[in-house]
Amino acid sequence: MEHPRKAFGWAATDSSGILSPFNFSRRETGENDVTFKVLYCGICHSDLHMVKNEWGNTIYPLVPGHEIVGTVTEVGSKVQKFKLGDKVGVGCMVQSCRKCQSCAENLENYCPQMVLTYGANNVDGTITYGGYSNFMVADQHFVIRIPDALPLDAAAPLLCAGITVYSPMMYFGLNKPGLHLGVVGLGGLGHMAVKFGKAFGMKVTVISTSPAKKAEAIQHLGADSFVLSTDPHQMKVAMGTLDGIIDTVSAVHPLVPLLGLLKSHGKIVMVGAPEKPLELPVFPLIMGRKLVAGSCIGGIKETQEMIDFAAKHGVKPDIEVIPMDYVNTAMERLLKADVKYRFVIDIGNTLNPTS
Amino acid sequence: MEHPRKAFGWAATDSSGILSPFNFSRRETGENDVTFKVLYCGICHSDLHMVKNEWGNTIYPLVPGHEIVGTVTEVGSKVQKFKLGDKVGVGCMVQSCRKCQSCAENLENYCPQMVLTYGANNVDGTITYGGYSNFMVADQHFVIRIPDALPLDAAAPLLCAGITVYSPMMYFGLNKPGLHLGVVGLGGLGHMAVKFGKAFGMKVTVISTSPAKKAEAIQHLGADSFVLSTDPHQMKVAMGTLDGIIDTVSAVHPLVPLLGLLKSHGKIVMVGAPEKPLELPVFPLIMGRKLVAGSCIGGIKETQEMIDFAAKHGVKPDIEVIPMDYVNTAMERLLKADVKYRFVIDIGNTLNPTS
Repeated sequence: MEHPRKAFGWAATDSSGILSPFNFSRRETGENDVTFKVLYCGICHSDLHMVKNEWGNTIYPLVPGHEIVGTVTEVGSKVQKFKLGDKVGVGCMVQSCRKCQSCAENLENYCPQMVLTYGANNVDGTITYGGYSNFMVADQHFVIRIPDALPLDAAAPLLCAGITVYSPMMYFGLNKPGLHLGVVGLGGLGHMAVKFGKAFGMKVTVISTSPAKKAEAIQHLGADSFVLSTDPHQMKVAMGTLDGIIDTVSAVHPLVPLLGLLKSHGKIVMVGAPEKPLELPVFPLIMGRKLVAGSCIGGIKETQEMIDFAAKHGVKPDIEVIPMDYVNTAMERLLKADVKYRFVIDIGNTLNPTS
Repeated sequence: MEHPRKAFGWAATDSSGILSPFNFSRRETGENDVTFKVLYCGICHSDLHMVKNEWGNTIYPLVPGHEIVGTVTEVGSKVQKFKLGDKVGVGCMVQSCRKCQSCAENLENYCPQMVLTYGANNVDGTITYGGYSNFMVADQHFVIRIPDALPLDAAAPLLCAGITVYSPMMYFGLNKPGLHLGVVGLGGLGHMAVKFGKAFGMKVTVISTSPAKKAEAIQHLGADSFVLSTDPHQMKVAMGTLDGIIDTVSAVHPLVPLLGLLKSHGKIVMVGAPEKPLELPVFPLIMGRKLVAGSCIGGIKETQEMIDFAAKHGVKPDIEVIPMDYVNTAMERLLKADVKYRFVIDIGNTLNPTS
């Protein structure tokens, strides 16, 4: 017991990635801390990578979860922004240096000392544990207020999947009515990009290798059109029509066809991270002043703005709410992309104390 | 004689790339045309590619040259902007559709129907001939006014090498005092990027594989520092220090080390076009919200702004003025990068009528 307060959740203990009940501890509520009871936690694809140590940096036991929402149960003496009972959330990070240029610009997500919500070394030397657990303690700076208009369960995935697509859409100007947005890959991130694109008043085209996604994209998610990337004719017709692309695919894939879909001055923003380098043809970049960029989640200020925007415009992820003891099955299904579009664990009702 | 007016210059007639005297013709001065006597013409590296048909699209006989300056000898009835004796120039293009979105935004350089200054099909169905010739006829829209403060010979390379680096520096915000610019490759384009960077009030670092470039970059061109890219220690020290990079190298080269030199939100702009795709690692793009972009010359309005800026701030390329009959030797030297930093042909004094 490194901390004074008993906590419980589910953890992976080795690279099998199998999660099981786990007892651990959390710190007391510090003067700048907000403590909250976890009610829901989304399952992000990176949770899957982390439980299996696929990025090689996992520290076991690992309690995943960085799409965490709940209600405040205790606040520190210096906390004025939150009070007991408030609906709050924590996303991918729980601390940063608060002094560097990135922190000064509300871009804590690019702070070199940013502390991830789980599986990371915190500033007190302990390891962080995520939201597959009964309660959280976090510095108030990293706590997001969840607006009443958003259901708590659907709010959870906004804290990672939502901000990950919203932030680059804002930064790269892909948020203007009338612009034409392409979304590559229709998973947790992609379906949020479609929804934000429509909420911004954009024309949205989904680009996918799977014909089955067409009806889903247009009829269910409200995309304006669909391009089957394996069909040369469809790709040719769509050439030069997009102002920007949010590319959520984390498998290696060719950029040439995507660059061809862009208008001049068009932008591809990668939010999925293929393990191997992609082939970048320079000529099409030059001839159309195009760019390929990356983006990583978003800062705390922008996360709050995103979630307020989502509440105002009714932007909600499509979720499948599951009980805690379904998590290992959910991970298997996630691996097969068998979810529309985000699993959210009903922590509040289904996480039982570890015996 | 497809046109009524006799002209002469030097042309390549086959893929040996050897240039020799050549008679051809040009159109009469149309109502929107400016006709000018060519006094100087820069030798761009693309002239070298084109005379040898290295891009596979050369139409022989080819009269190269798209860094052309001279004095007006005739103007059409609708030309009000220019009068006889004015110092003018023409860069890489002589026509565009004037109707598309790019043209409407003064970005004729990205117009799909843009007509290159030489070796291209013009709107009247004839082939364009460049500035290695005694006079030019061009639509006034594509004619640049050369300010008195600029020597005519040194003004010539600004029309391609100058605008090619200036335009992306403006578009990508790499033109602000205090920002730190990296310049990769110290040739015709690179040395102009250093000079514009200093004129913008930036800190400028030259990155090169050649130790011999250090003294040249710092003492001669006024760069603030130099990084030898083959020295891991120097590269490590320079990591995370640059706001942006103008990459002028047209050989295949690794992007990973250059991405490492960038601060978060840093930008690499490619203005040289390697024939084969580069390897693009996505993880560093995402982790620092970095981008890799391309840029192609610049629009006419911006070219005028660039040349006015250059005149005001004393930004001039370093040139070696040569006589017309030295052009084949100059091409050989250019191939070996044996020029500091741009050859300019003294057309006015050394181009003789073809016998």
